[in-house]
Amino acid sequence: MSAPVSRRLKAAIVGGGVIGGGWAARFLLNGWDVAVFDPDPDATRKINEVIANARIALPALYDKALPSEGTLTFHSDLADALADVDWVQESVPEQLELKHKVLGALSEAAPADAVIASSTSGFKPSELNAQGARAIVAHPFNPVYLLPLVELVGAAERTAPAAEILRSIGMFPLVLRKEIDAHIADRLLEAVWRESLWLVKDGVATTEEIDEAIRMGFGIRWAQMGLFETYRIAGGEAGMKHFMKQFGPALSWPWTKLMDVPEFTPELVDLIAGQSDAQSGHLSIRELERLRDDNIVGMVRALKRSGSGAAGVICAHEAALAAPKRREGLPVTACRQVPSSWTDYNGHMNETHYLEAASKATDRFMELIGADAAYVAGGKSYFTVESHVRYLEEVHAGDRITITSQVLNGAGKKLHLLHRIWRGDGTLAATIETLLLHTDLEARRACEPEAHVADALSKLAADHAALPAEGAGRFVGQRPTA
Amino acid sequence: MSAPVSRRLKAAIVGGGVIGGGWAARFLLNGWDVAVFDPDPDATRKINEVIANARIALPALYDKALPSEGTLTFHSDLADALADVDWVQESVPEQLELKHKVLGALSEAAPADAVIASSTSGFKPSELNAQGARAIVAHPFNPVYLLPLVELVGAAERTAPAAEILRSIGMFPLVLRKEIDAHIADRLLEAVWRESLWLVKDGVATTEEIDEAIRMGFGIRWAQMGLFETYRIAGGEAGMKHFMKQFGPALSWPWTKLMDVPEFTPELVDLIAGQSDAQSGHLSIRELERLRDDNIVGMVRALKRSGSGAAGVICAHEAALAAPKRREGLPVTACRQVPSSWTDYNGHMNETHYLEAASKATDRFMELIGADAAYVAGGKSYFTVESHVRYLEEVHAGDRITITSQVLNGAGKKLHLLHRIWRGDGTLAATIETLLLHTDLEARRACEPEAHVADALSKLAADHAALPAEGAGRFVGQRPTA
Repeated sequence: MSAPVSRRLKAAIVGGGVIGGGWAARFLLNGWDVAVFDPDPDATRKINEVIANARIALPALYDKALPSEGTLTFHSDLADALADVDWVQESVPEQLELKHKVLGALSEAAPADAVIASSTSGFKPSELNAQGARAIVAHPFNPVYLLPLVELVGAAERTAPAAEILRSIGMFPLVLRKEIDAHIADRLLEAVWRESLWLVKDGVATTEEIDEAIRMGFGIRWAQMGLFETYRIAGGEAGMKHFMKQFGPALSWPWTKLMDVPEFTPELVDLIAGQSDAQSGHLSIRELERLRDDNIVGMVRALKRSGSGAAGVICAHEAALAAPKRREGLPVTACRQVPSSWTDYNGHMNETHYLEAASKATDRFMELIGADAAYVAGGKSYFTVESHVRYLEEVHAGDRITITSQVLNGAGKKLHLLHRIWRGDGTLAATIETLLLHTDLEARRACEPEAHVADALSKLAADHAALPAEGAGRFVGQRPTA
Repeated sequence: MSAPVSRRLKAAIVGGGVIGGGWAARFLLNGWDVAVFDPDPDATRKINEVIANARIALPALYDKALPSEGTLTFHSDLADALADVDWVQESVPEQLELKHKVLGALSEAAPADAVIASSTSGFKPSELNAQGARAIVAHPFNPVYLLPLVELVGAAERTAPAAEILRSIGMFPLVLRKEIDAHIADRLLEAVWRESLWLVKDGVATTEEIDEAIRMGFGIRWAQMGLFETYRIAGGEAGMKHFMKQFGPALSWPWTKLMDVPEFTPELVDLIAGQSDAQSGHLSIRELERLRDDNIVGMVRALKRSGSGAAGVICAHEAALAAPKRREGLPVTACRQVPSSWTDYNGHMNETHYLEAASKATDRFMELIGADAAYVAGGKSYFTVESHVRYLEEVHAGDRITITSQVLNGAGKKLHLLHRIWRGDGTLAATIETLLLHTDLEARRACEPEAHVADALSKLAADHAALPAEGAGRFVGQRPTA
């Protein structure tokens, strides 16, 4: 389904677990071959579990199909895993001596032009490379297959090509200006973690109350704007300086316990683990992961409308994805995986989303005939006046669907289309017959399309005239005819 | 449209601005009368601007209509504003002497059973009431009309009834176990704010880079799960204790500058204000607010599927909202305001959402005939096999739409419905004719409905048989007949 690639790119994942597995999924679902090296006998199971989650979640962020998956292999020999790799990702436990050993071996055995990156959350490149390795830091965030952020730290000549590769697999490389312990995000997380430990230890709040204080309030703000842009708004017309004038003094008030570090006693660990059990213990980790992924997919898909935050990364990546062009003599106007948020209590794709998929196919068809965003900005567009959906087969979350669009009539103000939704198994899942009227957006009245659109339409109408149009022209409840 | 209330409840808003305006909008859009007292000559304009934003955003979170708005009045006399109030919200500037003066006057003049609440972000009730006032803290988060969190601090006999009122207007009261400077959320925010100031001051990151580090990564996690539940997942099968064992030691590492407070020099203020201008200066505060609100509405609507975080509050509140029952002899199966996320590049409600609204109306109709969630859990349901939409009139963001549902045929396995979408101005905006088949969810084959469902359907079909069903039975492009 994807555009042919001269050579499959290859990533080596050294050290499995949740982070390594997330990296493996990122590369694999973007069409890379992935070779895993991990002495843990459980590595295959663990990584396959992460990839199974990723296969449901990551493609659901996109309204286009991702490239077809690369090949996943597991290796007990490091040299095998590293043969011809373009990217090596180290995600071994956070111990500097171990990192030295592993990154040293990788720097020796990997091809000279391969990126060697460490997932470390705390160490600086100068520390990682103290014994001669040539690694950069590429610090991702869990779940790695969904969250775009990667903090890149290292020499510019190494981070620049790495950033380009990360963007090509839909991630957001944040290149640090200088190295610092724990990079950027984990410093912020550490500050909140410390303050939260105090609140629990002092009996001010439970873990659940702290989570509510975050997700019922500023968490929602931060997911789409972050800290400073949010405060800019709080400053109002008077701007950022006004905000800082207002809240600057609070810095010297006793609003935090941050000057002090709570002692990590067994009692504190028990207190927090107990509260966490009370809060979330009714759900298994797998259930929590699925809930988290569904929530993230839903929120990021909602942000695609504005392109804010993580959704901007998805939109840019999606625009760069190749799509199939024709099928059975008709233009392909959609090819995508069905997100689980499109399914309903009957365990299949809800009726609404058949029409949503067809509506997006109509938008794509408009681009094909030149009635694109620029045309709309010029004051003309097509309005749908009637649609008829026949639901022929069930479609499930994760199914890949393809839509073709046939012109039944493209003369004058009228545009009569027949969309077909095909499942990945070749079954026709639905037809959507739709009638649109070309409209003057100022007057909100029907009018003739411009010449280049009319020409494109009449050419397509002529091309499609000889093709069958089974199921068109029917009323609801009409019996099928032979 | 809403259920009749014996007496309208009334809130007094003392001190306008963004926070006072947000409170005014919360009460007003939930059917309360609101009286504003603010000596600022600009108060009327400022509050009306906030309410205008809220009218677009808050109802868009709901799939049911909110109660009809209360009456908004502005007063120069405090006693007028306080007459017969149930809730008084003080949102004057953050100066303890001023708070003493205002809260003292309110405690004297307000009815004895009215809640007197302060929006203070930092002061404790013991400080606020040091000179005899009887206030509690009800600390909200901007935008107050969208974010559900309110930190409630004070004596239990005062916070308990206040919490009940806040829940009735769709908010989430977090009642603190003990008073503490800056409550909970602002302590966490303060920690991040300090660390961020250091990062900017030390040239490690710009304001934009810090915002990206948040919203591309942990911000999305926190919006739906908060801190501890996220870390619980990070601990994996081994649980919270494992996570703490792994990351506890980092507390003593040099990962933050938190032991120290950055000096708030004019240079630091200029540096941050300049970076913020470079980041967001191309958008006005009004544009940023609209973007923020659209993003929040979209994300919270997406979370309604799981009911996580803020969406759980919306779902509970929505379930408690009354809805109209009948219109022109037909059951009303939907009554709601159109969210701006339902509109498209043609400046009106996209074709998909006519069907989405009708699909939710079908769900409501199913509850009316007893084919509800319990019935589906028992293994039977209705599957849609065909739908025909006639788009008759444009619908815009903020329009209130009402849907009626008519049974054309309810005999045997077949259910043939005609939904009509009515705009608030009485215009018929669309008809959606739909055919469903009663289905065995195990076999995925059509079967007869259970007796109570069949009975309910045949009764409705008889009731609706004499009513007109204009526009049903038509094929796409068929000419209207007289």
